[in-house]
Amino acid sequence: MNDADTSGLKTIGTDPYVGETPQTALGSWLTPNSLFYVRSQFDYPDIDENPWKLNAVSSAGDEISLSLDEIKQLPKHTVTVTLECAGNNRSDLNPPAPGNQFNNGAVSNAVWSGTSLKSILSKMNLGQDVVEILFEGADVGSPAADKDAEPYLRSLPLDLAMHEDTLLAYEMNGETLPLEHGYPIRLIIPGWYGMAHVKWVNKISSITTPFSGYFQGEKYVLKYDDGTERPVQEIQVKSAITSPREKESLKCCETYSVSGQAWAGRNQIKKVEVSVDGGKIWSAAQLIGPSENYAWQQWTYSWTPDSPGDHVLLSRATDTKGNEQPLESRWNELGYAVNGSKPVNVVVSN
Amino acid sequence: MNDADTSGLKTIGTDPYVGETPQTALGSWLTPNSLFYVRSQFDYPDIDENPWKLNAVSSAGDEISLSLDEIKQLPKHTVTVTLECAGNNRSDLNPPAPGNQFNNGAVSNAVWSGTSLKSILSKMNLGQDVVEILFEGADVGSPAADKDAEPYLRSLPLDLAMHEDTLLAYEMNGETLPLEHGYPIRLIIPGWYGMAHVKWVNKISSITTPFSGYFQGEKYVLKYDDGTERPVQEIQVKSAITSPREKESLKCCETYSVSGQAWAGRNQIKKVEVSVDGGKIWSAAQLIGPSENYAWQQWTYSWTPDSPGDHVLLSRATDTKGNEQPLESRWNELGYAVNGSKPVNVVVSN
Repeated sequence: MNDADTSGLKTIGTDPYVGETPQTALGSWLTPNSLFYVRSQFDYPDIDENPWKLNAVSSAGDEISLSLDEIKQLPKHTVTVTLECAGNNRSDLNPPAPGNQFNNGAVSNAVWSGTSLKSILSKMNLGQDVVEILFEGADVGSPAADKDAEPYLRSLPLDLAMHEDTLLAYEMNGETLPLEHGYPIRLIIPGWYGMAHVKWVNKISSITTPFSGYFQGEKYVLKYDDGTERPVQEIQVKSAITSPREKESLKCCETYSVSGQAWAGRNQIKKVEVSVDGGKIWSAAQLIGPSENYAWQQWTYSWTPDSPGDHVLLSRATDTKGNEQPLESRWNELGYAVNGSKPVNVVVSN
Repeated sequence: MNDADTSGLKTIGTDPYVGETPQTALGSWLTPNSLFYVRSQFDYPDIDENPWKLNAVSSAGDEISLSLDEIKQLPKHTVTVTLECAGNNRSDLNPPAPGNQFNNGAVSNAVWSGTSLKSILSKMNLGQDVVEILFEGADVGSPAADKDAEPYLRSLPLDLAMHEDTLLAYEMNGETLPLEHGYPIRLIIPGWYGMAHVKWVNKISSITTPFSGYFQGEKYVLKYDDGTERPVQEIQVKSAITSPREKESLKCCETYSVSGQAWAGRNQIKKVEVSVDGGKIWSAAQLIGPSENYAWQQWTYSWTPDSPGDHVLLSRATDTKGNEQPLESRWNELGYAVNGSKPVNVVVSN
């Protein structure tokens, strides 16, 4: 396995490496592997394909292990899935929240192929009282200053684990899954924030009580001002303007395509609206390009600025379940699910 | 623009370069740019982006020219489109037909982004009696031994040219269109055989009589034994087995996924059937993965061979308009649209 090449990304952190997709690539429906954002908790593990096995253990005592070749012989399933880091747009929060100060590039879209997780689970006697499937990555580290080293661990409810679109992926955009994205196997749960898509999966277990480890019970929790708390799970409805860019200079009375992407977890986008006056008047954008269950939706709005000066562009999305993107993100202690309308300021000259 | 890297392809011809997608990549829904089949008529042209302009000329005398940046400012549209060379599987024909002896790898699938051609055509007064739009590539050569050098030229009926999914593409799988695939601009007509997707487009014209140049009236014509002739246009319904491979050794009483792709031009795939006994009994395969208008459809069929020896696997597809893939390809003089069921021979051992 070659080393990771993340030279095209915008570096956000280096220990471990964290990088955003560059602005130029955010306007493309498909994100090339080399420009797909990277976020890990620990350093990349050393993977040697030959001794590598996926171990599956059930609470009933069943245990199987599968080589990568054996996994590839199971029926292959492909889904296009937009992944967003739970901390994307964290730097927009005021007051700031701790953690990687992501701008708007911790979101990307790829075609993932592998086997449905259920193809493996259905080979096993999972046990009577199973409530969740637990996933362990090969990456190990100390998750916080006062913690001992442990592998990256996350769980999923059994019904979601058995959904045919929940994948153990070994291909990304038709290529072998790159090391930085979880080679040889990454869990893909369409519509969930990035931290759930466990990389370098080497063990799965059926468990009879809900898992509450560090990366589930402590770190990825929405903690609001009013004291309510809930786990970070499904991606919240959101849209972003990718063209024009922040501070771009436009010319009066020429026609521009205000365009971008919108996404809503496991729901589809019903509409996107655009404002070119800072939020006073909203107009419907046109949805264009592919409409897939779990992938972002491109949209465009034709705008002919008719007066010179500063203009504030905004977009807001609504999904098919009626969830609306808020104008203002809801502040939370750890800075997750930041999905408010992000203004793009442009200057129009004569 | 960097030179073309076609080192991952299976070389079929070298003057100009012609290469097939390797077998290992045919089982992936998305074909990476570096593994997408390449077929050109002439050598790659020299493209210098800065003087480069797209010229659009109408029979009414209108003329406009657009830089690549100006084209990119038009609304962006994205479609996933499977391209198949009209000569794919030509080597299966008996007696042989002249031309590149393609096996089964002159077919690939990519996400194409650009501007709808109509965004440009609608800026012009095309003229009253326009019947077709003519496309000229920057590549120039002598198309046959007795012909003078000329650019690559093909036309489209006006209604198809005005369809919103007919693209002038400048991106392929989220990356800048590679030189060997037509940089800076390639015409994409979803569902048509590859020769229609003119590369390196630098001129478009509206014309008042149907075009009948060499690559339309002479070379890409289906000429059948019974004397009938028709132009090569929309891709015919077809399926192919990508796993197991020809001559693969399987073990008796283990379960295998017989899997592959199916495609049908501008129609969608309704069903795929599989035979594991050389065509006596047919069973429905399961359609899996993305179902997009113009992209191939993946399918899988679970098979547990119960007897050792030679087995002949076949697949056949039916599209939503009721068109059925034939068991035998219809022979034609120039070897196009070869879409018969291609057997895969495997050996099962105890």
